[in-house]
Amino acid sequence: MGQTLFFSVAVPLRYTRLPVIPKQRLVHNARFPHKTASSIQAKAVLSEFPNERKYPRVGADSTGSIPAAELLGVVELAAKTGAEVVMAAVNKPRNISYKGVTDLVTDTDKLSESAILNVVRKNFKDHLILGEEGGLIGDTRSDYLWCIDPLDGTTNFAHCYPSFGVSVGVLFRGRPAAASVVEFVGGPMCWNTRTFSASSCGGAFCNGQKINVSQTDQVERSLLVTGFGYEHDDAWATNMNLFKHFTDISRGVRRLGAASVDMSHVALGIAEAYWEYRLKPWDMAAGVLIVEEAGGTVSCMNGGKFSVFDRSVLVSNGIVHDKLLETIGPATEDLKKKGIDFSLWFKPESYVTDI
Amino acid sequence: MGQTLFFSVAVPLRYTRLPVIPKQRLVHNARFPHKTASSIQAKAVLSEFPNERKYPRVGADSTGSIPAAELLGVVELAAKTGAEVVMAAVNKPRNISYKGVTDLVTDTDKLSESAILNVVRKNFKDHLILGEEGGLIGDTRSDYLWCIDPLDGTTNFAHCYPSFGVSVGVLFRGRPAAASVVEFVGGPMCWNTRTFSASSCGGAFCNGQKINVSQTDQVERSLLVTGFGYEHDDAWATNMNLFKHFTDISRGVRRLGAASVDMSHVALGIAEAYWEYRLKPWDMAAGVLIVEEAGGTVSCMNGGKFSVFDRSVLVSNGIVHDKLLETIGPATEDLKKKGIDFSLWFKPESYVTDI
Repeated sequence: MGQTLFFSVAVPLRYTRLPVIPKQRLVHNARFPHKTASSIQAKAVLSEFPNERKYPRVGADSTGSIPAAELLGVVELAAKTGAEVVMAAVNKPRNISYKGVTDLVTDTDKLSESAILNVVRKNFKDHLILGEEGGLIGDTRSDYLWCIDPLDGTTNFAHCYPSFGVSVGVLFRGRPAAASVVEFVGGPMCWNTRTFSASSCGGAFCNGQKINVSQTDQVERSLLVTGFGYEHDDAWATNMNLFKHFTDISRGVRRLGAASVDMSHVALGIAEAYWEYRLKPWDMAAGVLIVEEAGGTVSCMNGGKFSVFDRSVLVSNGIVHDKLLETIGPATEDLKKKGIDFSLWFKPESYVTDI
Repeated sequence: MGQTLFFSVAVPLRYTRLPVIPKQRLVHNARFPHKTASSIQAKAVLSEFPNERKYPRVGADSTGSIPAAELLGVVELAAKTGAEVVMAAVNKPRNISYKGVTDLVTDTDKLSESAILNVVRKNFKDHLILGEEGGLIGDTRSDYLWCIDPLDGTTNFAHCYPSFGVSVGVLFRGRPAAASVVEFVGGPMCWNTRTFSASSCGGAFCNGQKINVSQTDQVERSLLVTGFGYEHDDAWATNMNLFKHFTDISRGVRRLGAASVDMSHVALGIAEAYWEYRLKPWDMAAGVLIVEEAGGTVSCMNGGKFSVFDRSVLVSNGIVHDKLLETIGPATEDLKKKGIDFSLWFKPESYVTDI
């Protein structure tokens, strides 16, 4: 049984429809599995396929009953519509309110989300929608869940500091099927945008051109990116240590401030990897698919199988993924041992998934 | 005597020509002075002028025998010429070599510097020039010292990761008189530039528009920026602690990777402050003048009087400067106590200054 399971993980998954595996048979953590007979078997099987993907695909196998081009078209239109709201506001004074001491929200967040919701609902009335500002709306029986960050990097936006973005991803039965991130670049005197998009098994694009992750094969020659959330708990402190460690051994760790943009940069090949604890589905749904479709690898920060309802993510060009996990993995396992909650979150109850 | 000295520091300096003060009368560290009678006197005098500048001006009082417009014109032309070399290279493969394990240099650094040198020498044959790549050339008897970083943020450039820039500053008797920074923004699919410039007592500009620092008056509402150099010594470790502390209490600390660009962002008002240890004159000469002319404050990281030959810098919107120094100052003093060298460096022997 273990052998079958791990074989299905080890074969080239990119263009293969996976069998639906009952949840209890999934190993959540491929890198640091519980030490059972089946996990030992797994290692042996993986080692026979050195060039195959070690990490299960996070994207959906298909876009379901909606043709990929149609779904992606609406995703792109939704992100573009939100971005127009944001662009209209970049040079105007901000009306800022606070979710926490430093967790900002502006009128623009809300206006952008509202504009995006209009696009989605006009096209797909019955789809389920999870927005950063508005929470969950729609029919939980839908196969489709839209994850919307109408303004990712609100703090940067409030300061006119690039980068920030609009992130729209749609899941089919829990796995990303189409995605678009509009990144705001430049800043005062030279605002501009760059649009990333991807559909499941359809590749990743920036401004219409196909993009690929970098080929850098050493951490020492990698440019890395991370983020620090608003909750300053043990995971935050652990990431401070990771920031220090990787600043020490790599070409540098950048800290820019918008998860979807940071992930898009990995997809574009200008950074080798990005990681962060405590992200939400709307931060990740688009970015992880764009990275994966650009040829990169996505996992949880302990190396485990990733879904957008997980609480941490590591995306990379794939080549340096294992090397990064040698440090990031055990640090994350230590947090688990301390009792830090890494269970799925923001997964709508009764929303049926294949994850 | 002490009183006269400190009074000259406390009066509005912006449009006032300072008397040349003999070096031995200058107090290097206004915030943490040696505990002498004159420093105690100083505090008393400063407290009588609560709204005046506490920090001595870093820019020159004049541009010497060269009219400000002429000097700034050549500075801007030099930076623009370097930037054209860089722009021609942004989408081409890099030929990278190493000064250290992670300290890169590319052909573009050298070509840009060469192009900038041509502009300077064509206009001012006898001026002294300090370039990051080529070292010192020219006549050390000159009143003028050009500090040139032909490609500030080479690591980012090597990865096509914004931001990086071309930084040209010229000192008159050791103090910045004119400055230009061309920032590269956007990245693949949307490269663009933004040009900052300033001349002593003439204000700061971005793309020709006057710019000002932000009016944010709380660290808790500030966006901060720092950098980490290639030498991973005690100062590097101290800055890791500062990064952690300020990430905890502010809206965030960004880590972008090009000192002159980071300082220009403070001048533009999109970040409230930036600090870094171990910078060189070519990293700082342009940026500090741009910040000061945008209404900001510049000091060493212990709060002391700054010159471009110092080894640390804190630039801010001025309003949050003292508050930041409450943490950054003692941390830097501790480094001094440990014996970390904070003496002037890269100051050409026999170059006469007013600092």
